[in-house]
Amino acid sequence: MSGSKCARLSAALAKQVLDSVDSAVPGAPQVINLLKENGKKVFFVTNNSTKTRKMYVDKLSVLGFNAKEDEVFGTAYCSAMYLKTVCKLEGKVYLIGSNAMREEMEAVGLQQTGVGPDHVLGKQTDWANVPLDPEVKAVVVGFDEHFSYMKLNRAMQYLTQPGCLFVGTNRDTRLPLEGGQIAGMGCLLQAVETAAQRQAQTVGKPNHFMFDCVASQFGVDPDRCLMVGDRLDTDIMLGSNCGLKTLLTLTGVSTVADAEAHQKSGCAERQGMVPDYYVESIAELLPALQG
Amino acid sequence: MSGSKCARLSAALAKQVLDSVDSAVPGAPQVINLLKENGKKVFFVTNNSTKTRKMYVDKLSVLGFNAKEDEVFGTAYCSAMYLKTVCKLEGKVYLIGSNAMREEMEAVGLQQTGVGPDHVLGKQTDWANVPLDPEVKAVVVGFDEHFSYMKLNRAMQYLTQPGCLFVGTNRDTRLPLEGGQIAGMGCLLQAVETAAQRQAQTVGKPNHFMFDCVASQFGVDPDRCLMVGDRLDTDIMLGSNCGLKTLLTLTGVSTVADAEAHQKSGCAERQGMVPDYYVESIAELLPALQG
Repeated sequence: MSGSKCARLSAALAKQVLDSVDSAVPGAPQVINLLKENGKKVFFVTNNSTKTRKMYVDKLSVLGFNAKEDEVFGTAYCSAMYLKTVCKLEGKVYLIGSNAMREEMEAVGLQQTGVGPDHVLGKQTDWANVPLDPEVKAVVVGFDEHFSYMKLNRAMQYLTQPGCLFVGTNRDTRLPLEGGQIAGMGCLLQAVETAAQRQAQTVGKPNHFMFDCVASQFGVDPDRCLMVGDRLDTDIMLGSNCGLKTLLTLTGVSTVADAEAHQKSGCAERQGMVPDYYVESIAELLPALQG
Repeated sequence: MSGSKCARLSAALAKQVLDSVDSAVPGAPQVINLLKENGKKVFFVTNNSTKTRKMYVDKLSVLGFNAKEDEVFGTAYCSAMYLKTVCKLEGKVYLIGSNAMREEMEAVGLQQTGVGPDHVLGKQTDWANVPLDPEVKAVVVGFDEHFSYMKLNRAMQYLTQPGCLFVGTNRDTRLPLEGGQIAGMGCLLQAVETAAQRQAQTVGKPNHFMFDCVASQFGVDPDRCLMVGDRLDTDIMLGSNCGLKTLLTLTGVSTVADAEAHQKSGCAERQGMVPDYYVESIAELLPALQG
């Protein structure tokens, strides 16, 4: 069967296939696992709202990371926490988002409606008078592959009601993937904000709430934290917003030139996107940990 | 059958039913028809992209207006003209829009793809590598009840290709309807612009292209034109942009207080939203025409 398409998946090949689907930065799992073995606390902080904490632990394990559920802070989980602990929401959520967001909300006892397809039905006059759930007291927007005009219009109708909360997971406008990039949920949030003529409160990086979650649950001291990330506008900015030391890795979208441009801009807000340190890859920390 | 739901539709009732579905401002048809009888040229200029010229003539006739196809300038027709005469587009259009837009494009010999539902299929990595039509050289966004994440992402992929044109019908963020309002196409355009990290060129009011279309086809003199409309930011602004006299009617969303606020702002751009004249309703012109 050599050269054919239907090949027996050997152990070595299995690893290769898994890596090609979604691979860790080489050396990253070793660094993380060694940090933990050396007694450091490590948390995984992501703006991606399409996975639950449980799903992330499974993914991280496949990639070779030693991770536990309570160390993962994604926007699916953190949005639910935000609604529960900061907004103290009493009522249902109209959710433009993923099944993962639904699960994290249910896990903290929040009811929601809206997940899944919502295809066009009826005519314009029907859409102006679309039936609304009277229990809905918040609109939450995350990444939603089923985003549609019907959802946009429904969110707008809820958001013009007095007292309706408006929360977004994050503002990332593009999602980089191996082999290209796709439209990010920031585009969906922008559409809903434009319709509602209101700004959403966003939960994800660079908003300090993501770190507040970690700090409140693990009692960490900002002075003794290092924020590691590959994006200046989210990861490094979060670190700056929370008074953490920051380390930029050059394995993602941001470059040293970007950081230098921020530094030279003289603009106060842009200084927050200048990291304390940078490395080509997190793997460069390996010798220091092994030494 | 008196009092029951299933009533025989008498001629008088028919009119009432039609009126309740979509009615003209009382007196407006008479004013328009008298203007034309008095030898004035009248044009119907709308940012709504969901109807062809032919569909508008049918609707206007039902409402009592004497209108011909070549007097109607909607953004479905004007976008097609813009692509043809200003952009001189050689290639296909990826169209986020209505069947009406498709028909107007076909009428001027432009090929397009994209109209109708585009539901979610596959996974994120597929969306980063979505198959693109190599003949597409422009993305056009109008009102699309089938707007979806798949369309947003597809538009983004086209718009990151070099030389791809980007045109929007207009920027209206809400569409007022009897009994409420719905999300306008400006929200969809905003989402695509955010994903593409580019601004679209918009064709509709207040862009002067709508008037250029009229002027080039009918040789009208701006100095002897009156722009009548109920919105300051589109109708009156278009008139100002093109050097027309302007008349605000108070039968829509804008108020005299809005106009006064623009006038007092001292902001040069906002002066363009101050009309020369205003009336409660266009029906107030009736005595002058009958006298």
